[in-house]
Amino acid sequence: MSNNKTEYRGKKTINPDLIRERENCTFDPIQITYILDEDPKKTEERRKMEDWFLKDPRFQEVIPSEYLSHKEKYEEAVRKACLIFKKLEEMDAAFDSYSQVLGQLGSAVLKDGNPFTLHYVMFIPTILGQGTLQQQAHWVGRAWNKEIIGTYAQTELGHGTFIRGLETTAHYDEKKKEFVLNSPTLTSYKWWPGGLGQTANYAVVVAQLYTKNECHGIHPFIVQLRHEKTHKPMPGIKIGEIGTKLGMNSTNNGYLGFDHVRIPRENMLMKNSKVLEDGTYVKAPSSKLTYGTMMFVRVVLVKDAASMLGKAVTIATRYSAVRRQSELKPGEPEPQILDYRAQQFKLFPNIATVFCFRAAASWLWQMYNNVTAELEGGDLDRLPELHSIACCMKAVCTSDAAKGIETVRMACGGHGYMTCSNLPLLYGLCTAMCTYEGENTVLLLQTARYLVKQFQGARSGGKLTPTLEYIRTVENQGTTVRRWDQTMESILLGFKEVSVGKLKTAVENLEKRQNDGIPQEDAWNMSHLELTGCAEAHCRAFLVSKFYESVEKLNPSSEVKSVLRQLSELYALYWILEKLGDFLRFSSLESSQVGTIQKRLEDLLAQIRPNAVGIVDGFDYCDEVLNSALGSYDGRVYERLFEEASKSPLNKQQVNGSFSKYVKPLLKSKM
Amino acid sequence: MSNNKTEYRGKKTINPDLIRERENCTFDPIQITYILDEDPKKTEERRKMEDWFLKDPRFQEVIPSEYLSHKEKYEEAVRKACLIFKKLEEMDAAFDSYSQVLGQLGSAVLKDGNPFTLHYVMFIPTILGQGTLQQQAHWVGRAWNKEIIGTYAQTELGHGTFIRGLETTAHYDEKKKEFVLNSPTLTSYKWWPGGLGQTANYAVVVAQLYTKNECHGIHPFIVQLRHEKTHKPMPGIKIGEIGTKLGMNSTNNGYLGFDHVRIPRENMLMKNSKVLEDGTYVKAPSSKLTYGTMMFVRVVLVKDAASMLGKAVTIATRYSAVRRQSELKPGEPEPQILDYRAQQFKLFPNIATVFCFRAAASWLWQMYNNVTAELEGGDLDRLPELHSIACCMKAVCTSDAAKGIETVRMACGGHGYMTCSNLPLLYGLCTAMCTYEGENTVLLLQTARYLVKQFQGARSGGKLTPTLEYIRTVENQGTTVRRWDQTMESILLGFKEVSVGKLKTAVENLEKRQNDGIPQEDAWNMSHLELTGCAEAHCRAFLVSKFYESVEKLNPSSEVKSVLRQLSELYALYWILEKLGDFLRFSSLESSQVGTIQKRLEDLLAQIRPNAVGIVDGFDYCDEVLNSALGSYDGRVYERLFEEASKSPLNKQQVNGSFSKYVKPLLKSKM
Repeated sequence: MSNNKTEYRGKKTINPDLIRERENCTFDPIQITYILDEDPKKTEERRKMEDWFLKDPRFQEVIPSEYLSHKEKYEEAVRKACLIFKKLEEMDAAFDSYSQVLGQLGSAVLKDGNPFTLHYVMFIPTILGQGTLQQQAHWVGRAWNKEIIGTYAQTELGHGTFIRGLETTAHYDEKKKEFVLNSPTLTSYKWWPGGLGQTANYAVVVAQLYTKNECHGIHPFIVQLRHEKTHKPMPGIKIGEIGTKLGMNSTNNGYLGFDHVRIPRENMLMKNSKVLEDGTYVKAPSSKLTYGTMMFVRVVLVKDAASMLGKAVTIATRYSAVRRQSELKPGEPEPQILDYRAQQFKLFPNIATVFCFRAAASWLWQMYNNVTAELEGGDLDRLPELHSIACCMKAVCTSDAAKGIETVRMACGGHGYMTCSNLPLLYGLCTAMCTYEGENTVLLLQTARYLVKQFQGARSGGKLTPTLEYIRTVENQGTTVRRWDQTMESILLGFKEVSVGKLKTAVENLEKRQNDGIPQEDAWNMSHLELTGCAEAHCRAFLVSKFYESVEKLNPSSEVKSVLRQLSELYALYWILEKLGDFLRFSSLESSQVGTIQKRLEDLLAQIRPNAVGIVDGFDYCDEVLNSALGSYDGRVYERLFEEASKSPLNKQQVNGSFSKYVKPLLKSKM
Repeated sequence: MSNNKTEYRGKKTINPDLIRERENCTFDPIQITYILDEDPKKTEERRKMEDWFLKDPRFQEVIPSEYLSHKEKYEEAVRKACLIFKKLEEMDAAFDSYSQVLGQLGSAVLKDGNPFTLHYVMFIPTILGQGTLQQQAHWVGRAWNKEIIGTYAQTELGHGTFIRGLETTAHYDEKKKEFVLNSPTLTSYKWWPGGLGQTANYAVVVAQLYTKNECHGIHPFIVQLRHEKTHKPMPGIKIGEIGTKLGMNSTNNGYLGFDHVRIPRENMLMKNSKVLEDGTYVKAPSSKLTYGTMMFVRVVLVKDAASMLGKAVTIATRYSAVRRQSELKPGEPEPQILDYRAQQFKLFPNIATVFCFRAAASWLWQMYNNVTAELEGGDLDRLPELHSIACCMKAVCTSDAAKGIETVRMACGGHGYMTCSNLPLLYGLCTAMCTYEGENTVLLLQTARYLVKQFQGARSGGKLTPTLEYIRTVENQGTTVRRWDQTMESILLGFKEVSVGKLKTAVENLEKRQNDGIPQEDAWNMSHLELTGCAEAHCRAFLVSKFYESVEKLNPSSEVKSVLRQLSELYALYWILEKLGDFLRFSSLESSQVGTIQKRLEDLLAQIRPNAVGIVDGFDYCDEVLNSALGSYDGRVYERLFEEASKSPLNKQQVNGSFSKYVKPLLKSKM
């Protein structure tokens, strides 16, 4: 055993059940950490950074933010967000560190969102991606030096994912060489941008561009929102925040309306399309060039989904090792709830999911980099393929992660309902991802459109892109009946058979409807359920195989290898049983074999059980990042629940003021 | 068309899409209302009561409570809860009205929970159920007259559903004729009771009773928590609230510890078991007698689940009729999102679920009353059967309702994430029900235990109880292959086949494990997944058939009858496809027939589409009860979102104080 395992990272009082779990683990969790960080050096750097950043006493809260009013929450968020800026200045900031600070570390400090996030994540990148060199120099310079704080205003009250429908207008006035921004309707008000409410003083605003009374579609403009000194809204700017939400209550999401607001011509971002002084509109060479950032964000969301689920399942697994409940055998001590098969079934597939999403995200990240490199060389060929896989990955991973967080939260019983478990906040953040950056159902339909096109093309002899070549493999099997067995090869092929089977059915139904004389668009709408179904099945085949491949590629100790294989197989079997109808319809799996799969899955749960705590320890989320009374490394669950309760301002007084004000007059005491 | 339909309940400005929806509806929604209220007279009374209650200006909020701090939320909740008490006094209060006021109406006023609820819902009923006549007279009298405010303290930090494990002790001191209540461990602290934190001054406390150093298991005691005049905690009472939660943040859930707190012997509730003056313990004639209240609460929870889902789906359906998005056909106006098949699939099965749960709850309510009547006569025969069906109903209905609320919330896109949609609060209330009053997985296992016992008994010739007679029907089919067709008879039988098939598999696996030498308890644990699965399948067969029977029994207009039949069939087909693997394995449904079911389901969605708004209008939730910017009767969605945002205290100032305090020092303005 390495020191790392036995010293418990310097912690003293550890719950005895957790000590025993760690002693019984067949491997040193640091091995998992190194695999996930990809390099022991990175682990060391990350831990150093975490210590330096998170142990800063200035981040301490006087009162935990969940007890504050909405306004106070915002003000406290601004205080902390400014401190994060200062920490960035204090350190030797490479861009990698920036994203780390703004990501995992920042969210440990600002657990319900940061009102400055879009400044770095959207405002600066959009100017870099869509501004001319001159514009980049000027605006990114100002933004980077914190002379201004920006946000990104695209979504409106009336339009989200369907951005062509945006209503805000930007009319070019040739005489004054200015754009006039206007909000012609209530629904054209910008709605949702983070930091827009009270925080930012500039924004990239997406609006319908008009020159010479002709509309050229949506384009980005830089607009000053508030006075740089006084922070008062500029003339014609109607601005505020949109109110409280299910989660993300420190992000200061805002609304924004324009009453004929004038900005100089130079404020349109003109790297791609341009408006000349005389009002001539020059179109961008390709409309696909703006796709890049969108793809990038979706890859990031898959990673975020994995990370949120990873935290949730760490919390729930540790809690399940500490929590003892009920009676398995009369007279014996109450078992750890981690020993219940039903509990294992709630936790372990979600542990496996974390590894799966990380593996798939790595693969997608590589593909994104390859395609981007090709793009720079003018080659747009693989962009639609990247788009199709990124769309369904974003949809499936955010949705699975959100459901997984709720499953493991409820697996913690009542205590999972407490804010101080951090599970409710994690769910709030994760479920939001199902809607933003492309609503999940819309994204699945976009993937489906690509799948249908490829399938129809291949039928008439067209080439299939690499991620879809399996369609031909499965089709070429033809009517030869293969025998399903329990090998991973057989299982992986089964997922592909299901994907192809669902795709074929969807195409058949779609074409049948069209052949019956139903217009193409209506036939598409009528086939929605089959179409989203085949996009999901395609994604699951992809996820299962990327997970499997990533495990086979690794060369850790044999103990760790066998754990990873257990998880990879568990993940596959879990989804076979979840989608059993599809497998019985479309794969060579037979009804009589289902019992074997069920049995194998139960055996895997039992095999993973002794290593469960070790595996989540290997995720290496420090207590400050987990931020949970139930999930801390030391397992002092009940003590922490109590300590957290004692922070409630209601508990600072023996008698609350409402007693004498409202209750006493009501009570008819005889005393 | 009746007046009721065309006058839009006195509302003037109605969204034109909603007007058209209502004009196109094939029936008058009041017909649905009468069916659900069971009697037009009840509808009238309910509406009158709603008006009288909800239009009271004293319930108006100065600031919507979501903007308040946790402490302010509590104080505002106490203010309103006291007003509700006053309203109760003002009216001619029959018990029926009480429960209405404390239920639907109260929750419209106190949308995130009422700190006084347990006074009426648990404190008084427990004393009535478990106190002697003398105790009832004394304590219920005092409680009813509001001389005292009570709560019910059972759950502890360390124990929830497994109540035998509670650790609080009550030792009888024969000399002083007193009980000494004590919290021997941290985990023995009471944790969760509503109103316990700062509100109640008395509680029924459940503790392990000891007389003469012998433990007799858990018993209820009345304990004074706070001084009736000063409201200060009594000596030895350690009390406070537990902190913020995912939802229910006005319920004032509390903790409670005892440091050798003495109460008179008379404070033990002694209707069933007794402790005599000399410390002699007299056992209750039957331990099953205390089951009654538990069953009652579970029936109520099923009704509550239906009601919460009903509100959510009303909100989402109306919003989907108003929201226009994307482009189905080039050049045409954006369609209502209600026209998308994928959207219909998210909404309509949940509309159907509301009717289904109501029908099943009515049936269960009748059974509960019958069994309770038998109990009074000393007949305990049907109690286990009632228990088994109530357990799985509570588990399945609360779980389905919570998932349904999230599905329809996300179907509202980003706006469903806003607190002012009321969907997040509804989810917070509903998901809590999955955990309290018996954690859902534990309850499913309890039903499974009964099913296994009945099945094994029947195999050796035993009688089956009425709700399980279908096991024999299915078994008697034997190997005769029946042909699946699309009739409801065939479908209902399919659900039963699945239930029996899953039960048989579970029993086989269980017995195989035992035959392999695995101890019974371990075999049970290892079979958890099959066991919860068969309990769920049993419940689904029950739900589908009760829904179908209830529709067939009704005699509304032919239009309404056909709508109800569509919903009942949709519900059944939805669950066949959700559980397709089970149907292909265990029912006579064949793989080749799945396409027909899919097609039929899609047709049903299309048939329900024109009546969707009419159906949810028929639920007759008034705007005050729905409490949603997205779901109001007039469909003024965007205006209301804006109005709600304008109430945020952050929007009351042009510049927030955090700008000069934190941001300005950070900005490096050149100006």
